[in-house]
Amino acid sequence: MNTEHCAITMDLGGTTIKLGLVQDGRLLAATQLEAQSAQGLAGRLPAVQQAIGRLLKEQHLTTGQLVGVGVSIPGIVDSVKKKVLSIDKKYADAPDLDFPAWARETWGLPIILENDARAALVGEWQYGAAQGLADVALMTLGTGVGTSAVIEGKLLRGKHFQAGCLGGHFTINVHGAACNCGNVGCVEVESSTWSIGEKVKANPLYASSQLRDEPKIDFAALFRCAEQGDDLARQLRDECLDVWAACAVNLIHAYDPEVLLLSGGIMGSGAYIVPYLQAKIDALAWTPWGRVEVRPAASLDHAALLGAGYLVTHPN
Amino acid sequence: MNTEHCAITMDLGGTTIKLGLVQDGRLLAATQLEAQSAQGLAGRLPAVQQAIGRLLKEQHLTTGQLVGVGVSIPGIVDSVKKKVLSIDKKYADAPDLDFPAWARETWGLPIILENDARAALVGEWQYGAAQGLADVALMTLGTGVGTSAVIEGKLLRGKHFQAGCLGGHFTINVHGAACNCGNVGCVEVESSTWSIGEKVKANPLYASSQLRDEPKIDFAALFRCAEQGDDLARQLRDECLDVWAACAVNLIHAYDPEVLLLSGGIMGSGAYIVPYLQAKIDALAWTPWGRVEVRPAASLDHAALLGAGYLVTHPN
Repeated sequence: MNTEHCAITMDLGGTTIKLGLVQDGRLLAATQLEAQSAQGLAGRLPAVQQAIGRLLKEQHLTTGQLVGVGVSIPGIVDSVKKKVLSIDKKYADAPDLDFPAWARETWGLPIILENDARAALVGEWQYGAAQGLADVALMTLGTGVGTSAVIEGKLLRGKHFQAGCLGGHFTINVHGAACNCGNVGCVEVESSTWSIGEKVKANPLYASSQLRDEPKIDFAALFRCAEQGDDLARQLRDECLDVWAACAVNLIHAYDPEVLLLSGGIMGSGAYIVPYLQAKIDALAWTPWGRVEVRPAASLDHAALLGAGYLVTHPN
Repeated sequence: MNTEHCAITMDLGGTTIKLGLVQDGRLLAATQLEAQSAQGLAGRLPAVQQAIGRLLKEQHLTTGQLVGVGVSIPGIVDSVKKKVLSIDKKYADAPDLDFPAWARETWGLPIILENDARAALVGEWQYGAAQGLADVALMTLGTGVGTSAVIEGKLLRGKHFQAGCLGGHFTINVHGAACNCGNVGCVEVESSTWSIGEKVKANPLYASSQLRDEPKIDFAALFRCAEQGDDLARQLRDECLDVWAACAVNLIHAYDPEVLLLSGGIMGSGAYIVPYLQAKIDALAWTPWGRVEVRPAASLDHAALLGAGYLVTHPN
């Protein structure tokens, strides 16, 4: 087997840690762990190491055949110093971790670190639904709302590594609720998995809603109940879609993309998310040149792993 | 006189056309005309030519001594083809005008065209309050709300020339009013000179407000009446400031600047705009690296002329 460009990759999500061995956009092997992100990341690293060890063994690979380790993580990430600068809720200890030392001591390999929405966009840009585009924005709808952008052929990072990745914290409701991040009326506080439970329970329709019978109130439950005709679920689903539409329009107005990619766990829950957002963008965005196409990511599950793998050998 | 780099410059504002002769960041001579922008631009060009002719004569300059013409104009501008792509309300005929032909036929000179907020930022970046910075955003508060950004040392334009300059059309109120641009709850529809008059008259407090006695309801009137204790003026002033703060936070979250420059006619009306927005940004923006400084532009009147002059010799 040609092992050129083989990399260990990990996508440290709020709910699930995905691990993979990646080679030039191909996922050779993958596995996943529960994230337990509320308990921090340091305590989870031994399990990550063991799982990676099993993957390497299965693939008959040794660390000497690998180019490095690529890590995708939520939050603001210094990709030069390979440090997490700030992270909202999940993995609270991540800013204290020395990722390069960990990778060196564990596998004798270099490591790259990137924000998860940026890693996913890189994966799609190099290998997926955004191949050949020089101007593309991504919105990932999951536990939170992540964003990223490529402008004129360059991945947008900014002076303090926070350009492009904070679209989930655009204010889209100046009269809205306080967000975890300190801002008001952010996309995330108005519509994300972590805020939806409270919204459901605070609504007067809750008493008669079938959402009362759901063991867990997340978007999957919300979309399912809405399709079954539940009034509260329909109302909140449409509110969420309108918040995402406002986020999408702001991304378009901010970054001038040709295509808006949609990614994240919620994309599996509603086939009409893409047409709904496309119609809203067609109606609302100011793009005299034409129409921004809304496109689902090619790989909802592994784009961040593929992107992290690419960044190991193309850090800039 | 050394005439190297001398350029004709014009800033085609919605209310006033400013004209100047510029040399490396120095304004050699300036004049201005009423814009009459509701009647379009073509009919105003003869008056512009005459006024430029007078400036040249006063300065004992001939067109042979000039490097070109720099034009700053609101709207979305193709700076490569030197065309206005889209413009909101003002100068409705501008997309049909052939600016290069006009400059060639009138003065035998090349021309550059740039969005007004970008031209102002270039002026401040090269010669004013943003000198030496590689990451800066600008918000200009005037007839409309213009924005622009420099990221990692590069003026942000984007694929279709609309990156950075559409911050006035960020949605900051998803439940807000319809904007001229087709979007909903834009910064401009929630707070700009063109929208404030309607807001004032629609408010129940208008019947007893001293704003009834104002011949023209603009921000100057609003800020003056607010300082004199008028309830309606205070309420609307604070609402506008909060809308601008949301715009500022979105610019910071989108472009990751070190400094946010404030410019535009309204800056003359309220000395507390800068500290108010600074306090809001300190409280609301997610910038773990430190604090984005809010800074007034060095030249509220002529930054766009200086920037347009710079762009004549540095078009990229």
